[in-house]
Amino acid sequence: MSEARIWHGGDLDEARRLFPRAPEPWIDLSTGINPIAYPVPPLPASLFERLPLPAEHRDLEAAAAEAYGATDPAMVVAAPGTQVLISLLPHLRPRSRVAVLGPTYAEHAHSWRKAGHDVADVATVDRLDGTDVLVVVNPNNPDGRLLKRETLLRLAEDLRSRGGWLVVDEAFADFEPGESLVPVLPSNAVVLRSFGKTYGLAGLRTGFALAPEPVATRLRSALGPWAVSGPAMETGRKALRDREWLEAARSARAADASRLDDLLRSVADAPLRGTILYRLLESPRAPELFQVLGEHGIWVRRFQYSPRLLRFGLPGTEMEWQRLETALARFF
Amino acid sequence: MSEARIWHGGDLDEARRLFPRAPEPWIDLSTGINPIAYPVPPLPASLFERLPLPAEHRDLEAAAAEAYGATDPAMVVAAPGTQVLISLLPHLRPRSRVAVLGPTYAEHAHSWRKAGHDVADVATVDRLDGTDVLVVVNPNNPDGRLLKRETLLRLAEDLRSRGGWLVVDEAFADFEPGESLVPVLPSNAVVLRSFGKTYGLAGLRTGFALAPEPVATRLRSALGPWAVSGPAMETGRKALRDREWLEAARSARAADASRLDDLLRSVADAPLRGTILYRLLESPRAPELFQVLGEHGIWVRRFQYSPRLLRFGLPGTEMEWQRLETALARFF
Repeated sequence: MSEARIWHGGDLDEARRLFPRAPEPWIDLSTGINPIAYPVPPLPASLFERLPLPAEHRDLEAAAAEAYGATDPAMVVAAPGTQVLISLLPHLRPRSRVAVLGPTYAEHAHSWRKAGHDVADVATVDRLDGTDVLVVVNPNNPDGRLLKRETLLRLAEDLRSRGGWLVVDEAFADFEPGESLVPVLPSNAVVLRSFGKTYGLAGLRTGFALAPEPVATRLRSALGPWAVSGPAMETGRKALRDREWLEAARSARAADASRLDDLLRSVADAPLRGTILYRLLESPRAPELFQVLGEHGIWVRRFQYSPRLLRFGLPGTEMEWQRLETALARFF
Repeated sequence: MSEARIWHGGDLDEARRLFPRAPEPWIDLSTGINPIAYPVPPLPASLFERLPLPAEHRDLEAAAAEAYGATDPAMVVAAPGTQVLISLLPHLRPRSRVAVLGPTYAEHAHSWRKAGHDVADVATVDRLDGTDVLVVVNPNNPDGRLLKRETLLRLAEDLRSRGGWLVVDEAFADFEPGESLVPVLPSNAVVLRSFGKTYGLAGLRTGFALAPEPVATRLRSALGPWAVSGPAMETGRKALRDREWLEAARSARAADASRLDDLLRSVADAPLRGTILYRLLESPRAPELFQVLGEHGIWVRRFQYSPRLLRFGLPGTEMEWQRLETALARFF
């Protein structure tokens, strides 16, 4: 795949290549995926065998609208993961000047560039003259930076005056929804919501765009009627309506994030940042720590743009916590 | 969904609306999906929870290359079903003059039209002057018409001279591969292969494009790296390498198709046509037959362009065969 040159979390093949003598099983802390997954409901064979029904598709989108606070389910476009939406959006606009507020998830800039747009990585949103499309990940990955809803609304208004779009990737907003743009979605904004991260079901491939017309229609047109699998639909409909699970998961993962901060604080140069599902460590000793963790079979996320940064996902079992503590003790 | 106005198979909600007093369970003969599915292998939780690995993705594409006879796995682009490929392709070309050899699967013309191209439905491929893109479903749905490989190669050559594409949808070629273009794929051709129909696993959403560069790269770029789910990858890799199952399924379904022809022959005006997975009945009594079958809870496929046609998928159980025989006996 031509995407191989972007570093992503989750590729243990790469971990095994770099650290061939590390103990198995690897502990994968390289993603921001909830390590305690939503329990997949029973999946009757018919969900695998027949095409998903239009009514099921509508119901999945209705469940997403409720979960995310959309005023109208017609704004919701279900997709096989948000990545395909990130990849598709650039194909739905003529050549544009695109600003990506970074550093952030690399696939945004990559996708717009590959589709032939002029892409600038910007560090602030203070000067956007001449920008047609602004992409913001909110809260940001990896540093958790959170733009206020009022700021986003002002930016959308600016962009609207020149036919521009505001793309807000709210992949990590489920557990931190305070500034979500969904309930007040401007006519020229597209919000992306990931299902797999919060619910720990990244392999199912489910995600959503929330967009007013005509963008929602163009996305639907490019995806066609059956892009989401039967098993993903069944699981998504149930999980998105399970508010009790979401609240319990939020509390439990927030406690995990706090426990992780306690472990990492002594090596950090600056306060740990991020979201409930990942913590960003900044330290001049980051490369050395990456090496020690790798030798202990613990895979964390490096960043091509800064060797001082490492991102840690949450361990999922007490055994994983203990292996992490042991490796850190060796490092200190 | 805006696609609702196209009639598709598989929507039993519509069947229940039209025939509210029909006996349940409905027998769905409205699709061309193999009613005897490939057995889904055990799916460990990790396939649902973690992102699919690049190595798994490459292996799925390698399995597809072997199964379809591609000379190079780099030509294969895995997707969550062929529908998304049908929907995407029109977004990867500037406005073009598109000819769709019809009547055929309606989503092709629909997708190119929605993306802003000039689309003509053509009944023959004899005169294609000025055509940039020709779409052929081979064997055709619903009538089974099969263009020879040499004809397709000649058409691709014509189109190449003006930068045009030949799109061949081989959704039903697994059981009838004789004229497949895959082993001799021209540089300007795109072949689509469906996984769900042959293997009876339409809900999993798996399909493939086979295309040389640069089209393969553009499709990969628009889909992004994780469009296919973990469960679909695991099942697809195993099923596509199970040549024994494929051969046994081909024999069994061919016998079913022949049994279905025997049942329908007395009402048909012309020889039954189609493929091993569906049979097309032509008769002035088709609307009346549709009605009687519906009242018996048997859902077959009508066509907006001809009330004389009904398409029958294959019953999957002896009980379904017997209910079909009973309903037909009532009709005769």
